[in-house]
Amino acid sequence: MHRYRSHTCGDLRETHVGDTVRLSGWVHRVRDHGGLLFIDLRDHYGVTQCVIDPDSAAFSLAETLRSEWCIRIDGEVKKRTDETINSDIATGAVEIFIRDLEVLGASKELPLPVFGDQEYPEEVRLKYRYLDLRREKLHNNIMLRSNVVADLRKRMWDIGFNEFQTPIITASSPEGARDFLVPSRLHPGKFYALPQAPQQFKQLIMVSGFDKYFQIAPCFRDEDPRADRSPTDFYQLDLEMSYVEQQDIFDTLEPVVAGCFDKFGGGRPVNRNWPQIAYKDSMKWYGSDKPDLRNPIKMQVVSEHFAGSGFAIFANLLEQEGNEVRAIPAPKGGSRKFCDRMNKFAQGEGLPGMGYIFWRKAEDGSMEAAGPLAKNIGPERTEAIRQQLGLEVGDAAFFLGGKPKTFEKIAGKARLIIGEELGLTDMNRFEFAWIVDFPIYERDEETGKIDFEHNPFSMPQGGMEALEGDPLEVKGYQYDLACNGHELVSGAIRNHKPEIMYKAFEIAGYPKEEVNKRFGGMVNAFQYGAPPHGGCAAGIDRIVMLLADEANIREVIMFPMNQKAEDLMMGAPNEPMTEQLRELHLRLNLPDA
Amino acid sequence: MHRYRSHTCGDLRETHVGDTVRLSGWVHRVRDHGGLLFIDLRDHYGVTQCVIDPDSAAFSLAETLRSEWCIRIDGEVKKRTDETINSDIATGAVEIFIRDLEVLGASKELPLPVFGDQEYPEEVRLKYRYLDLRREKLHNNIMLRSNVVADLRKRMWDIGFNEFQTPIITASSPEGARDFLVPSRLHPGKFYALPQAPQQFKQLIMVSGFDKYFQIAPCFRDEDPRADRSPTDFYQLDLEMSYVEQQDIFDTLEPVVAGCFDKFGGGRPVNRNWPQIAYKDSMKWYGSDKPDLRNPIKMQVVSEHFAGSGFAIFANLLEQEGNEVRAIPAPKGGSRKFCDRMNKFAQGEGLPGMGYIFWRKAEDGSMEAAGPLAKNIGPERTEAIRQQLGLEVGDAAFFLGGKPKTFEKIAGKARLIIGEELGLTDMNRFEFAWIVDFPIYERDEETGKIDFEHNPFSMPQGGMEALEGDPLEVKGYQYDLACNGHELVSGAIRNHKPEIMYKAFEIAGYPKEEVNKRFGGMVNAFQYGAPPHGGCAAGIDRIVMLLADEANIREVIMFPMNQKAEDLMMGAPNEPMTEQLRELHLRLNLPDA
Repeated sequence: MHRYRSHTCGDLRETHVGDTVRLSGWVHRVRDHGGLLFIDLRDHYGVTQCVIDPDSAAFSLAETLRSEWCIRIDGEVKKRTDETINSDIATGAVEIFIRDLEVLGASKELPLPVFGDQEYPEEVRLKYRYLDLRREKLHNNIMLRSNVVADLRKRMWDIGFNEFQTPIITASSPEGARDFLVPSRLHPGKFYALPQAPQQFKQLIMVSGFDKYFQIAPCFRDEDPRADRSPTDFYQLDLEMSYVEQQDIFDTLEPVVAGCFDKFGGGRPVNRNWPQIAYKDSMKWYGSDKPDLRNPIKMQVVSEHFAGSGFAIFANLLEQEGNEVRAIPAPKGGSRKFCDRMNKFAQGEGLPGMGYIFWRKAEDGSMEAAGPLAKNIGPERTEAIRQQLGLEVGDAAFFLGGKPKTFEKIAGKARLIIGEELGLTDMNRFEFAWIVDFPIYERDEETGKIDFEHNPFSMPQGGMEALEGDPLEVKGYQYDLACNGHELVSGAIRNHKPEIMYKAFEIAGYPKEEVNKRFGGMVNAFQYGAPPHGGCAAGIDRIVMLLADEANIREVIMFPMNQKAEDLMMGAPNEPMTEQLRELHLRLNLPDA
Repeated sequence: MHRYRSHTCGDLRETHVGDTVRLSGWVHRVRDHGGLLFIDLRDHYGVTQCVIDPDSAAFSLAETLRSEWCIRIDGEVKKRTDETINSDIATGAVEIFIRDLEVLGASKELPLPVFGDQEYPEEVRLKYRYLDLRREKLHNNIMLRSNVVADLRKRMWDIGFNEFQTPIITASSPEGARDFLVPSRLHPGKFYALPQAPQQFKQLIMVSGFDKYFQIAPCFRDEDPRADRSPTDFYQLDLEMSYVEQQDIFDTLEPVVAGCFDKFGGGRPVNRNWPQIAYKDSMKWYGSDKPDLRNPIKMQVVSEHFAGSGFAIFANLLEQEGNEVRAIPAPKGGSRKFCDRMNKFAQGEGLPGMGYIFWRKAEDGSMEAAGPLAKNIGPERTEAIRQQLGLEVGDAAFFLGGKPKTFEKIAGKARLIIGEELGLTDMNRFEFAWIVDFPIYERDEETGKIDFEHNPFSMPQGGMEALEGDPLEVKGYQYDLACNGHELVSGAIRNHKPEIMYKAFEIAGYPKEEVNKRFGGMVNAFQYGAPPHGGCAAGIDRIVMLLADEANIREVIMFPMNQKAEDLMMGAPNEPMTEQLRELHLRLNLPDA
C-alpha cells in the first residue's frame, strides 16, 4: 500500500464498502459522540468521515488530535446507516473505521479556524494565508482562477494563437503608471524596470513576423492600492494579431470570453449579443465608458423640451453652447419619497440637485405629472418628455443640465442606484458591450494642453489626414469591452506607421527625439517593414472577480499583498543588507525621522 | 474580401487554381527574370511565389519593392509548369499573378538580411532582434519553445495538476544566488526581491491544502552571465505534490518529460529505461553528477590491482586512506597515438598525467599489453585489469589515482572526450538518469565548516536520527534528472517537520533565530499541520536547447539579454530620472570615475 494514501478524501463510495483503505489529510472537525470519536478528514478533493472507538489501539492517540492536524489513517470502509447518510458530500454514504493512525504534522493553536464561515480580520487572514487558503470559499476561488486561466489558454491555442513569454526584467515603458525599478549590479547607476504591460514587446513580436500572440502576462505597476487593484503585480490575457482590423479582434475575443463565462459563470446567463457603442454615446446613455447593461435604463437628451421653457435654470443654461439637459428615466420610480432620495443623492455628489417629474394616477383616474419641474414647464412639454422617454403612471424621470462633462459621471452613478433600488437591474447575468471610437486626445481643462486620452500607440481613424484637422475630433481604433459595469478588456489597432506615430506624438507635445528616447525599441522596429496589427488585454483578476462574485481582488489571488503593498506572511518589503546596497551602488535617502 | 488577406502564405494548393486571392506578408526575395518580377511572399505560415509582369498596372510600384517590405497583394492563383514546381514548400505547386499591390510597411536598408543563412555578430542580431526573429532557424526555435511549453502544460493538466501563479514582487528568499531587489516607494528604505524560484511559495501551497501544483515559473537570479545561462530571468516547469515519496515524483515526471522529448525530439530515440544512480556511484562511474549516458564508458575502481604493485606511484598512493585508483576503459582506443593524446589532455588539466595500458596483437598473433604501466605491474595484474574491464585487442584503459575529489571531474571530462573521439557516443539520442542520494552536507575544504551541499529544504534520509550521527554521511531525499550530460531537473522530498528543519540548519551553523528570520514564512507555516510533500523543477530553457540542439541559450529566448545583461533593443538598463530616485528614497553611490 502507498506510504500515505490508497484513495483521496473525495474518492470513497458505497462500492468500496469492506475495503481496507489508507487516507491522508487534515482533521477538519472532531466530535465525541458517547465515547466514539468522529473525525472529518479533509484533503484537496473532499471530506471523509472517520470513526474510532475506545477499543482501538490508536484511540489514545486519536484523543490528542486537534483541528488542522495533518494525519494518515488506515481503516475499513463501512456503509453508513440510512439515517446517517450525508448527501451533501460525495463520500457521504460511507465512513471509515480507523485501525491505525499516524500524525504527519501537528498544529499549534489556530489563529484562524478553517472549519466554519466566521469572518476574520484581513490582516490575520493574510498573515496566516496558508490557513485561510484551506477554507472552502477561498480554496474554491483559487481553483476557479486556476481553471479559468487554463481554460483561456486552451481557447487561445484552439484558435491558432501561440503563447510567448516576454521579458520581465527590461526597460522602462511609460504607459501612464509608475514603473517598478530594479537596480543593476553590473551597470552602476543604471536600472531595469518591470513592464507595466508587454505592450511594446507584443508589438515587436508582430514586427518579428509571428502572427498571433497571446500570453497570460504578469504586469507591474507601482500604484497606490485600491480594493479592486493589486498594488504590485496583476495578470492579463494579453493578445496581438497581425493583418487585422478592429472587427477581427472582436470576432476573435468574443467566443473566448463568452465561452469562459458560459463555463464558469455558475449558470448565470451570458448575453451573446454584444453591441458596439461609441464612447460618446456610452457617456450620453449610461454616464460611463463601462456601462452596466444589466440595468435597462438609457439616458436621453431632452434639451429641446427645456429650451425656452418656464424652468429658468435649464432654459438659461441652454442658451450657452455646449450645455445640455439629459433625462434619466426611472420606471417604477414614481413616488415623491424615491425622487427626493435621488435628489439628495445628487446634492451629496456636489450638484445643486436633480430635478424630477413623476407620473401618478389622479383622483379622477387620469394620469397626472407631479413635481416642481412639471409645474414650471407646463403640461405640453411634460407630456412630450413622457412620450420621448416612454414612461407611464408609476414612473419617474430625473434631469441634469449643464456641460455634460460636469454631470455625466454623477448621472451614471444615479442610473446605477435607480436601477438597483427599483429592482430594474437583473444582477444575475452577464451583459457585454464593446465601447468604440474613443477620442485619441483630450484637452487638459486647466492647462489647455492637448494630451493622449488613453494610449499613444493607437491608430487614428482616418490616419495622417485626420491628424491634420482638429485633434479633439480624432477618434482612434481603440476599444474597451465592458461587462456588468467593469472594464474587462482594453485594446486598439496600433499605429504601425512611423510617420503617423511621430505626428500623433507631436500633437501631444512630444518632439521626435523624445519619442525616440522613450519608445525607441518599437519606433525603430517600425522602420523595417511593420505589418498592420492590433490586439487587446483582458484583466484576469477582474474576470475571476466577476465569475466568483467577489468585490475584493485579494479574494481571488493566492498570496496577495495587503493594501499597504506589504506581504505579511513573507515579510516584504524588507530592509536590505548593507552589502546588497553596496553591490547595487546605492545609498538610502530617507526622510528625516 | 478581408482587408488584408483571404489566405495565409502557407495555404494555397493546386485546388485553389483559378481563385482570386489576397495575401499579406513580407517580401522574402525579389528576382527579375527577363522582365517578369518574382516575389517570394512570406508570413508566419509559409512562402508563396508571386509573379508580376510589366503590363500590370502595379508593375512600377512592384519595381520599388525591397526585401522585408511588408505588402498586400491581390491576384489569381495559377498552376506552375511541371518543371517549376517546388516540392520544398507547401505552396510549391502554384504561383500568384499579381493584379494589385499595396505597401503596408516599407523598410529602410536592412542591417541584417532575413533571407539566407549568413552568420551575423550577436550584438547586431540582438539589437535588431525583430529582423533576426524573422529568420527561419530562430523563428522555428521560438515556435518550438512555445509548443514545448504548451505541451508541458497540457501534460500536467492531464495528470491532475493545477497551475497557480506565485508572487513575483516578494521577499528575498535566499537560495544560493543573488537576489534582484526592487526598492519600495511606499516603505522608505525597504526593498522587495524577485524570487530566485517559487520554492517557498510552492511549499506554502502544499501547506495550504492544494494537492498538485505546477507553474511555468519565471525565476530571477542576479548572476554573472554564461553561455548557457540567462543573466536575469529564466523559466522552470516547477511542480510540487503532497503525500508523496521520492518514487512518486519520478513516476509523475517521467512520462511528462519523455512524452515531450518523444514529440519534439525530431525522431531522436528517447530511452525510456531511466536508471536511478546514487550520487556517489555517478561520480565514480562517470565523474559527474549529470552523466552523459549516450556514452557507454563506465569507469571502475581498480585499486586492488595496483596495491603493492611494481608501479610505485599508485602503490604508494594506495597506502594512504581515502586514495583510490580508477580506470577509464576505452574500447577501440588501443593506439599509442590516442593514448598519448589523452595523457596530454590530463596534463593540460593540471594533473601529472594519465597512465594507460593498451592491448594489441603481438607479431605471433597473441594478445599483448603495451604501455609503461603494464611493464611496471607485470602481466598477471595487467590481465586481471583487462578482465575486470572486459577489454580486448584494440582497446585501451586510462588510470587516475589519488583522492577521488582531486581527479573525478577530470576523469569525467576524459570519459566524454574518449567517447566522442572513438565514436562510442551516439549523439543522436536522449538518455536520462535519475541521480539520487545526494549528501545533505559537505565540508568546506578550507574552513572545515559544514554547510548544505545543495538545498536546505530537503528531508534527510533517516530523519532526526540520521542528523544525530556524522553529518557528512547523511543523504537527502534529493535528486536530479540528468539528460545527455545536462542537469534537466532538480528536486527533493521536503523537510516538513519544523524540529528536523531547525536541527538540519543548526548543523550547518544557522541558529534558530536566523532560520526564523530567513525562512520565517515557511517555517511558521510548518507549525500548523504541514503535509509531507516534495517536488522538482525542470529547466525550460535547457529542455528547449536540447530539443533544438542549440548550445547558446539566446537561441531559444525571444528577447534575450546579451552577456552583459543588457537589452540592446530596448536599451536596458537605463539611467533613472532624478524624480524616480527621490520617490524611491535612493541616492546613487557610484564608483569613482
